[in-house]
Amino acid sequence: MIIVMRRGATDAEIDQVTDAVKAVGFEIHLSRGVERTIVGAIGGDRGLLERLHLESLPGVEKVAPISKPYKLASRDFHPEDTVVQIGDHAVGGNDLWVGAGPCSVEGRELLLESARLVRTGGAHALRAGAFKPRTSPYSFQGMGEEGLKILAEAREVTGLPVVTEVMDTRDVELVDAYADVLQIGTRNMQNFNLLREVGRSRRAVLLKRGMTATIEEWLMSAEYIMSEGNHNVILCERGIRTYETATRNTLDLSAVVVAKQLTHLPVVVDPSHGVGKRAWVVAMARAAVAAGADGILVEVHQRPDQAMSDAAQTIGPEAFSQMMREISAIAEVLGRRVPISSTSHV
Amino acid sequence: MIIVMRRGATDAEIDQVTDAVKAVGFEIHLSRGVERTIVGAIGGDRGLLERLHLESLPGVEKVAPISKPYKLASRDFHPEDTVVQIGDHAVGGNDLWVGAGPCSVEGRELLLESARLVRTGGAHALRAGAFKPRTSPYSFQGMGEEGLKILAEAREVTGLPVVTEVMDTRDVELVDAYADVLQIGTRNMQNFNLLREVGRSRRAVLLKRGMTATIEEWLMSAEYIMSEGNHNVILCERGIRTYETATRNTLDLSAVVVAKQLTHLPVVVDPSHGVGKRAWVVAMARAAVAAGADGILVEVHQRPDQAMSDAAQTIGPEAFSQMMREISAIAEVLGRRVPISSTSHV
Amino acid sequence: MIIVMRRGATDAEIDQVTDAVKAVGFEIHLSRGVERTIVGAIGGDRGLLERLHLESLPGVEKVAPISKPYKLASRDFHPEDTVVQIGDHAVGGNDLWVGAGPCSVEGRELLLESARLVRTGGAHALRAGAFKPRTSPYSFQGMGEEGLKILAEAREVTGLPVVTEVMDTRDVELVDAYADVLQIGTRNMQNFNLLREVGRSRRAVLLKRGMTATIEEWLMSAEYIMSEGNHNVILCERGIRTYETATRNTLDLSAVVVAKQLTHLPVVVDPSHGVGKRAWVVAMARAAVAAGADGILVEVHQRPDQAMSDAAQTIGPEAFSQMMREISAIAEVLGRRVPISSTSHV
Amino acid sequence: MIIVMRRGATDAEIDQVTDAVKAVGFEIHLSRGVERTIVGAIGGDRGLLERLHLESLPGVEKVAPISKPYKLASRDFHPEDTVVQIGDHAVGGNDLWVGAGPCSVEGRELLLESARLVRTGGAHALRAGAFKPRTSPYSFQGMGEEGLKILAEAREVTGLPVVTEVMDTRDVELVDAYADVLQIGTRNMQNFNLLREVGRSRRAVLLKRGMTATIEEWLMSAEYIMSEGNHNVILCERGIRTYETATRNTLDLSAVVVAKQLTHLPVVVDPSHGVGKRAWVVAMARAAVAAGADGILVEVHQRPDQAMSDAAQTIGPEAFSQMMREISAIAEVLGRRVPISSTSHV
Repeated sequence: MIIVMRRGATDAEIDQVTDAVKAVGFEIHLSRGVERTIVGAIGGDRGLLERLHLESLPGVEKVAPISKPYKLASRDFHPEDTVVQIGDHAVGGNDLWVGAGPCSVEGRELLLESARLVRTGGAHALRAGAFKPRTSPYSFQGMGEEGLKILAEAREVTGLPVVTEVMDTRDVELVDAYADVLQIGTRNMQNFNLLREVGRSRRAVLLKRGMTATIEEWLMSAEYIMSEGNHNVILCERGIRTYETATRNTLDLSAVVVAKQLTHLPVVVDPSHGVGKRAWVVAMARAAVAAGADGILVEVHQRPDQAMSDAAQTIGPEAFSQMMREISAIAEVLGRRVPISSTSHV
Repeated sequence: MIIVMRRGATDAEIDQVTDAVKAVGFEIHLSRGVERTIVGAIGGDRGLLERLHLESLPGVEKVAPISKPYKLASRDFHPEDTVVQIGDHAVGGNDLWVGAGPCSVEGRELLLESARLVRTGGAHALRAGAFKPRTSPYSFQGMGEEGLKILAEAREVTGLPVVTEVMDTRDVELVDAYADVLQIGTRNMQNFNLLREVGRSRRAVLLKRGMTATIEEWLMSAEYIMSEGNHNVILCERGIRTYETATRNTLDLSAVVVAKQLTHLPVVVDPSHGVGKRAWVVAMARAAVAAGADGILVEVHQRPDQAMSDAAQTIGPEAFSQMMREISAIAEVLGRRVPISSTSHV
Repeated sequence: MIIVMRRGATDAEIDQVTDAVKAVGFEIHLSRGVERTIVGAIGGDRGLLERLHLESLPGVEKVAPISKPYKLASRDFHPEDTVVQIGDHAVGGNDLWVGAGPCSVEGRELLLESARLVRTGGAHALRAGAFKPRTSPYSFQGMGEEGLKILAEAREVTGLPVVTEVMDTRDVELVDAYADVLQIGTRNMQNFNLLREVGRSRRAVLLKRGMTATIEEWLMSAEYIMSEGNHNVILCERGIRTYETATRNTLDLSAVVVAKQLTHLPVVVDPSHGVGKRAWVVAMARAAVAAGADGILVEVHQRPDQAMSDAAQTIGPEAFSQMMREISAIAEVLGRRVPISSTSHV
Repeated sequence: MIIVMRRGATDAEIDQVTDAVKAVGFEIHLSRGVERTIVGAIGGDRGLLERLHLESLPGVEKVAPISKPYKLASRDFHPEDTVVQIGDHAVGGNDLWVGAGPCSVEGRELLLESARLVRTGGAHALRAGAFKPRTSPYSFQGMGEEGLKILAEAREVTGLPVVTEVMDTRDVELVDAYADVLQIGTRNMQNFNLLREVGRSRRAVLLKRGMTATIEEWLMSAEYIMSEGNHNVILCERGIRTYETATRNTLDLSAVVVAKQLTHLPVVVDPSHGVGKRAWVVAMARAAVAAGADGILVEVHQRPDQAMSDAAQTIGPEAFSQMMREISAIAEVLGRRVPISSTSHV
């Protein structure tokens, strides 16, 4: 922590700061300049330092952190890439990973059809929501446990592991019993109790970036999960809220590049929610892979116009095939590959 | 709903749209122009219409709603102001309401001292957090149930009703047993299960605006609560996330004016989180009242520099007195008043 | 400037940084900690330091400025408030100042009528545009020099000084010949050549905040004008671009409070462009004065519905009277006043 | 234009609207529903309609445009791609185009060295600024005309056409005399007089997106240029301002996909300003090409650490080679190619 004193701060004010900082176990580095004095506080417990509220002390102009607030998620403390295993495939290594499926589970027949479709298309996991966060209380809220059972059946039939969202601390145990990957949605990225709860699970967690979260806040949310012992966290960029209204959100692909530098966790991209329009999804999936993403999470439906939620951004079978072909070719340019799905023989 | 067809949409495409819309019970108004055809769909159930995903149909350029997606929260359907009673005072009528207190419950003695302080200063309710949403898993997370008990004791001692946050669906019953007003924090504004749960309570709910929520999304979240039967909802503007970094958030006072026009629910303002710096809080409280807010929720601490959370934005006793004096005078300009607290004799 | 070295930076890397910094005349303060080394660079010319691009040197993690990049505009270097004289009234002292008028000059008779209207209503200056920045090349672009002549006539008739926009470096001399205050619009806040050009004028300059400018960038643009010798700069907050679409812009009243702390220049508020809707203008003008603004710039038209530009946000004579009454009463609460216009006897 | 009347609008109010709209030459389509009446106005001159300010009329709830406000730039009116010729290469066809060079002209020897470097690396044009828009009046502002002369010499020596910025209407003639492509910077995207002035030139114009411009505003600025007769406009995405501070700006690659759909003009991407950090530039260039960009504009310097401006985001010779190799390979995946520069033999 660096404490910059105001111009003309008195010795008494400087002493008050250094005494406080030393008292909580930090080493002091004092730089007295002609104009200002700067206090460096190094080596102690940052949490204790924050409790001091140094910014409120007389004579203090500003306090700037020098280390990152996350540790378990930081590449500084864990330089090698984390690889998360999901069924027979892995996310975060050299191979790319693709999770695909309809926005929500709408019925048994429909979901099984979707599952077969994405397996045939080469996906490595099936994604679909049984619990759906909806802006309106009057919209379809998902099939709940019945939906989870259908997902489990789809896994049995196709061999594809299942990614599905959990929205409520009370449902973690339930979803855990059916899913292979617990998804935390964008609106719950800072639902801290939920993060802790999935942190106590041993399932992989797919953590979507909050639609207005900074990259640092996103990594702090990963830290919440990891601090409970679950290190199988996959980050998922899905678009952020900006002033632009032509797209549903602004897909922030530079976040992939930045996050891969700051953390060892895998980073995948959901191009569907980012742009919100079917015609733009494949192009953004290509761009995500070119930027260095470890995988793609995409909404696919056999008859996208009839999907019950997010139809506008859901692609159909043909676009999915095109996407798989094109991201495979781009992966090769980068020395990576989209592996043939282990379920494709099923 | 208005459906604008593309230039050159065929008759078959137009028929497909009108047939679909009529099938779910809407009346059709067709305008065929030289360049384009426009389909107006009036009178049916908007939820059904949304399921049609008209934007995905061939020939459709865009679909624009003409009515608002919320009903119970809308002033169109409930023109007169809703007044929410909290103890002996009310929010949303001609009188202004002030809730004040420390960011979090830090201990019994400290909280009782704070409670007496804000009562003496003229507050109508005591606010403090027992459960604290913190960005870092390593920060102080609140005292939990012990904190709630202390809050209840403070109410007994001072007569002030208690406003406190609930963060987890599993805690609603517990918090309900101790609090007078359930606060939903900015990060939980779209925690839909939590909204439903407090909607089943009969306590007043103070719903903070999500830090990147639109006014419409904020009202939709109020609608969630109301749709479960609880109409005692107070909206609270607390600053939105923008590109500006000089302030912690950008306090959006125009949201007060807009929300008061769109909804009958009371709207109060939290100037503390909006600006994030003590020196600016009183000025923004004045501005909020001048803009037409129904009340102020403010962080006050007897020794603000020692507060365990949000110290930088917490004001002390003197600034609180100044704030009360100045907002009273501004209220008078608008023909309103800050009533003398019924507890001031305690 | 503080240079934070990476974990494990070598001595050679640290030496390279300190040598470079000393070479351009800075004093070095070195703090070697267990984890990191921090280099404080104090006392030299920041411009020279920036040319070193220290962030690019090996071993450097980040570089943080400790002083502000503006000097002439900074309250650190000029603690007392600047008061800018405009005709018989002043902006930035204890008295509030009101500039009012139609968005654009639409014709001689109409403008004279508007000028009389705002004079009668108590404004201290007349504002109207002869050159209009319009998003579309097909929209009305203003009357140009003819409009300036009409403005000058209105000043003669009413005694009100004239505030009008200049958009092009080639027009500064022309506008200077007619106007009392040169307005720099939001889209030109970083038109640096234009800033320099008005900096060479002796007219007061009203500098609107760019719709996506930070407060620091706004002050840097004031610095551009001042660096050419013209210190008569008035800052004008007019709303910033955010994700919220219910209002045209988000009026950032905390920017008033922050700017008044950082700079000695007067800060006024334009509530018309901020909210973009007539019904909300008066409430935001009240809030601006309550927040501490030094004045209000407002769009007023005798028949607002017929205004050729910005009609939706222009208020009529009655709302203007209400605004003047209410901001006067709020000014009194703060120990300020809205002076009776010296032209009211004309 | 669609005019939605309020619930309970009277016949007189509806008549007032329809009469006004018919009076300016529009065809009326009236839909009377149980709840509301909707007026469709089709076929007339949108500019005239806007002057009516229908939103201000009694009984009107909202007014929504149905056609786009730009025509010359719209793909609706010009379905085939525009291809802009720059020297021996073209932008907007099947071939990708790369403009590269240092941020600013810093001296004759340095620039010639840079020009040879980017020619050898395969660039199709040389980019460098002689006039530099700088946030601070105390920063290096560019070499001006001397810089232009050096650029012209570099063209002679290398055969590379020159892209350089013009910031002031007074300089258009001068820059036009030396440059092959006139660049409009992000801060001048809505400097409408400057847009008109370059519209009168016959040079190609590279129009950077304003850092907070919507895609529609960007296309409106292209329309300004085109409305003066110059249709050789190249759009350039360079990052938008969001709340995220980890990157200098947020590079909006979905804007490429959206713009390519809305307009026939070529769209290129500047990854340097978007991310602001050298290590991230190549990845974002790859992503831009994968998204469908028609070219890349990139800052390259032989010794990037010594560049006088924007050093942090400037890449060196090796990274430039890597970028050219990788975008060529990705272009092939999309059936495009990065042509061998016609100057590579010079």
